[in-house]
Amino acid sequence: MIIVMKPNASEDAIKHVVTEVEAKGLKTHLSEGEEVTIIGVVGDKSKLDTTAIEAAPAVEKIVPITESYKLSNRKFHPQPTSFKVKDTVIGPDTMTIMAGPCAVESEEQLMCIAQAVKKAGATILRGGAYKPRTSPYSFQGLEEEGLRYMKTASEETGLATICEVTSAHAVESAVKYVNMLQVGARNMQNFELLKEVGKTGLPVLLKRGLAATIDEWLNAAEYIISSGNPNVALCERGIRTFETATRNTLDLSAVCVLKEKSHLPVIVDPSHATGVRSFVEPLAKAGIACGADGLMIEVHNDPAHALSDGPQSLNFEQFDSVMDNIRPYISLAGRK
Amino acid sequence: MIIVMKPNASEDAIKHVVTEVEAKGLKTHLSEGEEVTIIGVVGDKSKLDTTAIEAAPAVEKIVPITESYKLSNRKFHPQPTSFKVKDTVIGPDTMTIMAGPCAVESEEQLMCIAQAVKKAGATILRGGAYKPRTSPYSFQGLEEEGLRYMKTASEETGLATICEVTSAHAVESAVKYVNMLQVGARNMQNFELLKEVGKTGLPVLLKRGLAATIDEWLNAAEYIISSGNPNVALCERGIRTFETATRNTLDLSAVCVLKEKSHLPVIVDPSHATGVRSFVEPLAKAGIACGADGLMIEVHNDPAHALSDGPQSLNFEQFDSVMDNIRPYISLAGRK
Amino acid sequence: MIIVMKPNASEDAIKHVVTEVEAKGLKTHLSEGEEVTIIGVVGDKSKLDTTAIEAAPAVEKIVPITESYKLSNRKFHPQPTSFKVKDTVIGPDTMTIMAGPCAVESEEQLMCIAQAVKKAGATILRGGAYKPRTSPYSFQGLEEEGLRYMKTASEETGLATICEVTSAHAVESAVKYVNMLQVGARNMQNFELLKEVGKTGLPVLLKRGLAATIDEWLNAAEYIISSGNPNVALCERGIRTFETATRNTLDLSAVCVLKEKSHLPVIVDPSHATGVRSFVEPLAKAGIACGADGLMIEVHNDPAHALSDGPQSLNFEQFDSVMDNIRPYISLAGRK
Amino acid sequence: MIIVMKPNASEDAIKHVVTEVEAKGLKTHLSEGEEVTIIGVVGDKSKLDTTAIEAAPAVEKIVPITESYKLSNRKFHPQPTSFKVKDTVIGPDTMTIMAGPCAVESEEQLMCIAQAVKKAGATILRGGAYKPRTSPYSFQGLEEEGLRYMKTASEETGLATICEVTSAHAVESAVKYVNMLQVGARNMQNFELLKEVGKTGLPVLLKRGLAATIDEWLNAAEYIISSGNPNVALCERGIRTFETATRNTLDLSAVCVLKEKSHLPVIVDPSHATGVRSFVEPLAKAGIACGADGLMIEVHNDPAHALSDGPQSLNFEQFDSVMDNIRPYISLAGRK
Repeated sequence: MIIVMKPNASEDAIKHVVTEVEAKGLKTHLSEGEEVTIIGVVGDKSKLDTTAIEAAPAVEKIVPITESYKLSNRKFHPQPTSFKVKDTVIGPDTMTIMAGPCAVESEEQLMCIAQAVKKAGATILRGGAYKPRTSPYSFQGLEEEGLRYMKTASEETGLATICEVTSAHAVESAVKYVNMLQVGARNMQNFELLKEVGKTGLPVLLKRGLAATIDEWLNAAEYIISSGNPNVALCERGIRTFETATRNTLDLSAVCVLKEKSHLPVIVDPSHATGVRSFVEPLAKAGIACGADGLMIEVHNDPAHALSDGPQSLNFEQFDSVMDNIRPYISLAGRK
Repeated sequence: MIIVMKPNASEDAIKHVVTEVEAKGLKTHLSEGEEVTIIGVVGDKSKLDTTAIEAAPAVEKIVPITESYKLSNRKFHPQPTSFKVKDTVIGPDTMTIMAGPCAVESEEQLMCIAQAVKKAGATILRGGAYKPRTSPYSFQGLEEEGLRYMKTASEETGLATICEVTSAHAVESAVKYVNMLQVGARNMQNFELLKEVGKTGLPVLLKRGLAATIDEWLNAAEYIISSGNPNVALCERGIRTFETATRNTLDLSAVCVLKEKSHLPVIVDPSHATGVRSFVEPLAKAGIACGADGLMIEVHNDPAHALSDGPQSLNFEQFDSVMDNIRPYISLAGRK
Repeated sequence: MIIVMKPNASEDAIKHVVTEVEAKGLKTHLSEGEEVTIIGVVGDKSKLDTTAIEAAPAVEKIVPITESYKLSNRKFHPQPTSFKVKDTVIGPDTMTIMAGPCAVESEEQLMCIAQAVKKAGATILRGGAYKPRTSPYSFQGLEEEGLRYMKTASEETGLATICEVTSAHAVESAVKYVNMLQVGARNMQNFELLKEVGKTGLPVLLKRGLAATIDEWLNAAEYIISSGNPNVALCERGIRTFETATRNTLDLSAVCVLKEKSHLPVIVDPSHATGVRSFVEPLAKAGIACGADGLMIEVHNDPAHALSDGPQSLNFEQFDSVMDNIRPYISLAGRK
Repeated sequence: MIIVMKPNASEDAIKHVVTEVEAKGLKTHLSEGEEVTIIGVVGDKSKLDTTAIEAAPAVEKIVPITESYKLSNRKFHPQPTSFKVKDTVIGPDTMTIMAGPCAVESEEQLMCIAQAVKKAGATILRGGAYKPRTSPYSFQGLEEEGLRYMKTASEETGLATICEVTSAHAVESAVKYVNMLQVGARNMQNFELLKEVGKTGLPVLLKRGLAATIDEWLNAAEYIISSGNPNVALCERGIRTFETATRNTLDLSAVCVLKEKSHLPVIVDPSHATGVRSFVEPLAKAGIACGADGLMIEVHNDPAHALSDGPQSLNFEQFDSVMDNIRPYISLAGRK
């Protein structure tokens, strides 16, 4: 951590900051420039109240040098994380395909989709039972009924299942029915929810917030891991920019950054990121090519009548074709 | 609502869409252009599953013409909303000043600040008991203990109180102690929480999400109002952009947009928006000048030792001075 | 400047960087942290090739502490700049109103507008003769003919004039006819154009680029000033964000940042920033309230038939009314 | 084009708009909704002054249905464009690799790099002779001297060459020495420059502006093509977002959008987009996987001493390795 003093900071003001920092057991290094003086701080910064220092009148700004997340940080865990979801493994040697409808609509619908995606090669069935929707007048999900269908589909097909949770109450229900929990983009910084999913024993897929920096994302993962749950995967699903030709802007360089900064597996969701069916295949390939550990793809038996997110869903034939076409990319990436 | 067909849409495909729309009791108007055909849809769109239509192969896109929010929409409620928080009124005739610390730290601290902000002219005491913090290792708030101090401060000074809530559990506690609830930026689309605060009888301050469009914001307000609570005020607190000279970018044109599109009161928070103490006064003036109904300002007895957000907090003397300097602007705006 | 080494940087690598820096006559301060070593650099950084250092394998990143712009930097020029444009002064004691049509369309039109804006209190007539338009099929301006009308209008009314220039060729023409040159948002980093306007003797209004940081903006001003022209004013005209309710997002906190970081005058353009006529007045007031030195407002004799940017232009009656309504804010700001 | 009237628009106002539109020889379709009336417009919109209509008091907004660019629009040119640069072809069957230093520094440097990139498989040598730099105090390029070295390098190696131009003057020089011109991100909407490069006979690489929408980008291409030059390729090089972990955010979904909306070839530049050397290979693969027609990669003989953009440049060994590793992806994409 570096403390940059204001150009006109008096010696007294500098000394005052140094004294406060050293009082917490940290060491300082003074560097007097021609324009400004900077104070390097060495030691365990968690002992220090940095906002207090930043508020001191003669302090210009604080420049952090090391990251505030530790448990999700590759520096302290150089080996990539890998974990099991039912019988499937998410990690550096596999390409995990999660597929299914945006929203669970009925038992028949879900079963029919589950069989189709299994046949095409997916190993995790996704399906929303709690749908966070922009308008209160849109379909909000089947809730516990939907979860029950997920469990049945899992039992009949052997697929693992993942479902989004949106409240402590939903977590309580979901743990009884599914194998993996998803925290959606809108809840990435719903810290109470992060603590709740952290307390369950289930693997968690943490989607990136619409305007979340990678640093904030890894700090959100830190909430889950520090609540006792190390099995976290991160899902890039597009960020909000000025561009309106796609629903969001898929940030594939984030995959590279995450691989460097963290040991957690990374999943790419080209369906939500673009909102356009025909972009799913090329961006799925691109995601694999730049290092993703898995893909999340929306599949629906009848996209033209889906209750949620139809335009980006693939039908069975399209999903089969995508799976066929990405296979050589999975091989090239040395995964199975 | 307008349905834009693809350039090569067949007559059959067009007829198919028209039939589906009319089957729901809506009317259509066909407009055949040289390049594309568009279908105008008239009637109650809530009967229609627009994502299904958008997913039809020959449909290029759907262009909404009317807003999905109704209860927060000025078109249906032309008169500006005004409501009481304890003895103070938020609405078109007043300039409500909410002031206090980012986080409640102790009873003495809060009481001391409450007395100072009251003396300077604030009527609502703000103070965080549940702090959503980016890192799990940062101070997370005193929780119920903090709420109790808020109640004591209110009793001793007569100030109304507002406190952020971050979960259903926090709502349950807060309603016992404070006069107004705040939903923070990170929870603007935590729809479960919106429904919870909607069910309480307390006025709600809904902060804008970091990357929320105004349309999404008014839809979030719609969640609260449609849960039975019409007393909602909106708080502009800066959006996330590429600019890093300020913590966020205060979007004052949003105040103008909201005044045109909605009847709900608008509060401006220059402290959180900029993160810089010296920008609070000029942007408070600017907020008043462009139509805000109130201000939220961070005040701390000892900003250099605040447990949260020190750099943007004013001390008592600075807050006194801001209040003195904004008074002529409040008069000019015809408010009291 | 601070050089942050990678966590595993060897002593040799650190020594190598230190040697390179010191070879240029600069001093270094080493600060060995528990995780990383940082090197503080003191002295004239312009002697140093920072990209070369950043490219060294053991270097994590470089953190600049001081700004690269000097001539536009308040640290080195604490007094606010003020300069004359014909008979009007732009600076800390005045509120300069620039008004006129987006595009010059004819001599009659311009004369009629010039008289109206003068009567209402504007002192500088704006009018575009070279229009940078997104589509090549939109009206591109009257070019030199438009400039001649500007000169005539100035002679008949006594108003000063400002016109956008888009190429070296346009600069050559414009200097013969107008009193101030404007560099538009799209050309803020057209460095060749900045050097050209820098070589003329005329005051320059430099609009902020659509996605330009304040730091880049002040560096662009530095191009003009370092080419020999100190008379530069900066114009905030909205930045591009995800919000689509307004054409751009007017960043009024930028006015505060500029006042702190630079000595150059700041003009606010609420017309282009929002693209909405009814938002011009409230945001003009807000601009004055937060410290602007002037306003640029679009006025047209017949907005419904303007060849460019009609929706945001005020007619004469509306401009009169805005001028009347902002006057008390100008007084409050202690300007004339 | 659709004209949306305000909710309270009178019949007279609607009739007035209809009359104006029809007076230009266009047809209208009225669609009266419960809340608003919309007017569909059919025919050649270039005859229409849309800003005038948008400025009419009873008009809420205009919704464009068809794009304003024609020559760069796939709807009117379904076959993908392909063109020759010296002996190399850019188009749907090839993967064109452009490689070289950010800035030309000396004849020896350039020759040495040219030989290395040729050996590794590149066919176009890139090298900047005119460098647009944020600060006027940074290295600005060797100008004509640099162009001469490019020509020599081309003659000795047989590589085609590309060089950025930043002014009409630079265009005049560059056409004498290089095979392809580049318009940089900062100049994407420097319309005068676009017209200048459009008048030369040379192929043009048009980089996307930092905050340019795809629609604006294709309109910029339209400037070049409508000036007589159909040989335009588009280069995605990252857009500006809130994320700071990479220099810009590489928008690979833009490749998919461009392939759908335009017939022009698309080049991906992972070097500038990320500013991080280790991200070049994974994102080069991703670019190929999602449909790019070529790559632009920075290569330097001694990145640690480059005069410009060192941190993202590959040395020869690294570039060899990238070329080896992307080859299977080029094959998979069915290109050579």
